[in-house]
Amino acid sequence: MSPAPNPFPKSSPGNFFEDFRVGQIIRHPTPRTVTAGDVAVYQACYGGRFAVQSSTAFAKSIGYATAPIDDLLVFHIVFGKTVPDLSLNAVANLGYADLRFLKPVFPEDTLCASTEIIGLRENSNKESGVVYVRSTGFNQTGEAVLTFARWVMVRKRDKAAAVADAVVPALPKQVEAADLGHAVPPINAEGYDRQLAGSPYLWSDYAVGERIDHIDGMTIEEAEHQLATRLYQNTAKVHFDQKHAEDNSRFGRRLVYGGVIISLARALSFNGLANAFHVAAINGGRHAAPAFAGDTVYAWSEVLDRAEIPGRSDIGALRLRTMATKNLACTDFPGPSEPATANAGVILDLDYWVAMPR
Amino acid sequence: MSPAPNPFPKSSPGNFFEDFRVGQIIRHPTPRTVTAGDVAVYQACYGGRFAVQSSTAFAKSIGYATAPIDDLLVFHIVFGKTVPDLSLNAVANLGYADLRFLKPVFPEDTLCASTEIIGLRENSNKESGVVYVRSTGFNQTGEAVLTFARWVMVRKRDKAAAVADAVVPALPKQVEAADLGHAVPPINAEGYDRQLAGSPYLWSDYAVGERIDHIDGMTIEEAEHQLATRLYQNTAKVHFDQKHAEDNSRFGRRLVYGGVIISLARALSFNGLANAFHVAAINGGRHAAPAFAGDTVYAWSEVLDRAEIPGRSDIGALRLRTMATKNLACTDFPGPSEPATANAGVILDLDYWVAMPR
Amino acid sequence: MSPAPNPFPKSSPGNFFEDFRVGQIIRHPTPRTVTAGDVAVYQACYGGRFAVQSSTAFAKSIGYATAPIDDLLVFHIVFGKTVPDLSLNAVANLGYADLRFLKPVFPEDTLCASTEIIGLRENSNKESGVVYVRSTGFNQTGEAVLTFARWVMVRKRDKAAAVADAVVPALPKQVEAADLGHAVPPINAEGYDRQLAGSPYLWSDYAVGERIDHIDGMTIEEAEHQLATRLYQNTAKVHFDQKHAEDNSRFGRRLVYGGVIISLARALSFNGLANAFHVAAINGGRHAAPAFAGDTVYAWSEVLDRAEIPGRSDIGALRLRTMATKNLACTDFPGPSEPATANAGVILDLDYWVAMPR
Repeated sequence: MSPAPNPFPKSSPGNFFEDFRVGQIIRHPTPRTVTAGDVAVYQACYGGRFAVQSSTAFAKSIGYATAPIDDLLVFHIVFGKTVPDLSLNAVANLGYADLRFLKPVFPEDTLCASTEIIGLRENSNKESGVVYVRSTGFNQTGEAVLTFARWVMVRKRDKAAAVADAVVPALPKQVEAADLGHAVPPINAEGYDRQLAGSPYLWSDYAVGERIDHIDGMTIEEAEHQLATRLYQNTAKVHFDQKHAEDNSRFGRRLVYGGVIISLARALSFNGLANAFHVAAINGGRHAAPAFAGDTVYAWSEVLDRAEIPGRSDIGALRLRTMATKNLACTDFPGPSEPATANAGVILDLDYWVAMPR
Repeated sequence: MSPAPNPFPKSSPGNFFEDFRVGQIIRHPTPRTVTAGDVAVYQACYGGRFAVQSSTAFAKSIGYATAPIDDLLVFHIVFGKTVPDLSLNAVANLGYADLRFLKPVFPEDTLCASTEIIGLRENSNKESGVVYVRSTGFNQTGEAVLTFARWVMVRKRDKAAAVADAVVPALPKQVEAADLGHAVPPINAEGYDRQLAGSPYLWSDYAVGERIDHIDGMTIEEAEHQLATRLYQNTAKVHFDQKHAEDNSRFGRRLVYGGVIISLARALSFNGLANAFHVAAINGGRHAAPAFAGDTVYAWSEVLDRAEIPGRSDIGALRLRTMATKNLACTDFPGPSEPATANAGVILDLDYWVAMPR
Repeated sequence: MSPAPNPFPKSSPGNFFEDFRVGQIIRHPTPRTVTAGDVAVYQACYGGRFAVQSSTAFAKSIGYATAPIDDLLVFHIVFGKTVPDLSLNAVANLGYADLRFLKPVFPEDTLCASTEIIGLRENSNKESGVVYVRSTGFNQTGEAVLTFARWVMVRKRDKAAAVADAVVPALPKQVEAADLGHAVPPINAEGYDRQLAGSPYLWSDYAVGERIDHIDGMTIEEAEHQLATRLYQNTAKVHFDQKHAEDNSRFGRRLVYGGVIISLARALSFNGLANAFHVAAINGGRHAAPAFAGDTVYAWSEVLDRAEIPGRSDIGALRLRTMATKNLACTDFPGPSEPATANAGVILDLDYWVAMPR
């Protein structure tokens, strides 16, 4: 093995902390056309039942041109594009903020992504640092369809490398109601068939503070999370490389991509939130603990807020906290108010807005 | 955990035996548009080789508008819709009868389902009862594409709940030949290329009593049956929830959805029945024993009957009994005439009609 | 079990060595329409990132009618069709030669395959023999899209069966540069966005003798290789039948289809060869050792040659040797010049041409 800095310049080992500069803009490779094929694989991975994404007939009846691509599939594809440039050498994905869906994405749309580095802060141990980014996904006409901030801890290549002074961006604690719903066309309320959608409960039927046990559980297999993560062209080693990345790692196992848990929690949340047909924004999220193949995932939600969306009389927004657990049914609502980490079974703590018909 | 009847009214624990009434009609949630994506996932799950479903060119050459969706994929999707309302609290799926395909389904069609409760009979232990239903699948124009009866044993929520007198519907032992072939357009016999389809044997080449060893075997993995079952939006806990539904269950394992076994047996049956391009009806079927990940499935068939279809000179019908076994090759035809349960290796005993060119 | 030659004439046990004749042409069953669904399942299986196959917008920007089907998916589908007729009773798939892609394949194209037997040589033990074939894949208009030679060791049904004198065909050691690029339309170099494609390096940037560590690794699961192999309608027992084909076999395990390793190596090779958007030809390939579920696959490549393609100023060809290993990272380039079999970790040694923009 050569000690030279890069003996094989054609292949990329990914960026390290000292490779980033605040203000830098990275246009990420591989444009990706999303198709009905992706919808089907995503369906097979998570089992979603939201009518708008499942049925072109239902989507058209309420005002969509056709069934939109699941919001989280759009997120995972855009996120996946950023991985080779941003987080191949990540120690941990620390958080998300200010994630907003801006335009609906339909089959045959092509997604690209770019990222601006908005902050950098070296860790005191000089071995890694936190990279703050804003990533945006675009469709084939150049319209932004999704934007989000995230921060991730990235290793340094060289502990001695000098880095600039810390810049830590201010990120909003929540997306404002006025910024929701841009990815939803005007909804025809009369066309919205609640029985077909799976629940009589609309926006006004939910109360702040109400909790929902989503009841069902889903056991994850290695093949499943790998298939999903490859569908997103997410190349992070920790999900795929058992022998060299994981055999000697802290966990000794491949880690399930956190986005798989988000999608599972969303799919499970249908039971109790059937009319929450759109994830409008994510205020913040933490992967409280890793998940592994063999874990069974459960979820519950709490209604944190209920907001009108300015200019929209067709849909309203619910702010939800959805927590996913592993191997722990949610009938006893683990950790609703205390920090999630206090409970070893909690793997996801997600604060987000959904849109529902009013 | 609250002892109250339903502390979380937004999410559904599913219906229990005492919730059903004879004559009740349930319109099931989630309409589902079937696409080329679903066809590909289904292909990957079972490996089917019937030319009509595999090739648009072949399908068109014999008279279809395009390649139809596999009959069993249509069945599984319609069946899946009924699960949250009918069988989430099922002890066992006891049987099917009078299943008929009525219209072909093509990519981009949207499927819905509704069910009529046609019978109810409480068990003597008062802890459960048998629910008899007729479920029907519809396309986006409201045409029925599939109808079937099934009966399923469902738990009671409350042993003391009073229930009405037993009603047990009369169900036909077999679908009549006149009721077959409605989902098959007139077939152009000259356009039917037997070499491309994989066998020289047409309807008239099969003799009643003939047996066919389908030779090949297929080992099932957890990820495979879960992907397939989620593709159908079938939410039955026993297939997915290892930790809470299965760790302490009778088997201690996730059960493979019986429909996965039907589809595997159908795919294996290509070797010997390559021109049986359409499952026209299912007279009855029993899942003689559960299957689990790691089991290898084999199949054999016996020709029970050969019928002309009134008004159809293009296709004829074969009534088949196909048995699937686990971990037991079919060269010795396990249990052809005695009850299937006499042989521990038998997991499926299916009595059905296929259509073949004459 | 009956001792008669074929007690069940309707199902096929596959051909044995003595069933083949030089000059014989076999038209293989099951035509297969390739769709966006197949593209998505293939994506989920391997995680490919080549922009031309991933994005219709990118493909169109450089001159394709739309995004072509991945070359290797075309190969696997055509190969799969040949299995039931050629290699169901194979002892080993010995090699490939002179594999050329002749026309691009697009979604909705229907593929068929036929094979000519071009050589036969019985082994001295009289228990098996080598069958040499040329297989060709066609689209729905009868145009050849792919042709290749392979040779495979096939068991005899009857050791005593007489066979004709050996015929061993001469096969080229490599495909000539003039025979490359037929499946690539004229490329618009200005439209080719290297940043979006993932690498600044074009054809002229690669030097003969240069080596590339593709860095990433991918662990294979049983469900994954089975899903992929069924997608190709490849029915070889060794991949699927744990109980009867493998429990008592030499390895005691299901073998991963060699084509899965080729596709994994190709997907991994994106890191270092991002602009090698087309596999133009395969000069030869050997599966140096079997791979099993649980193995982690790595890959590296060496540039063997760099050729201009006559008449093409838009693209050039690189001749590559890509080796895949199992459970052995490629930083030390296992076995670059000595025979691959000297190194137990090498599972694939592939000699092929890729096309790149100049």
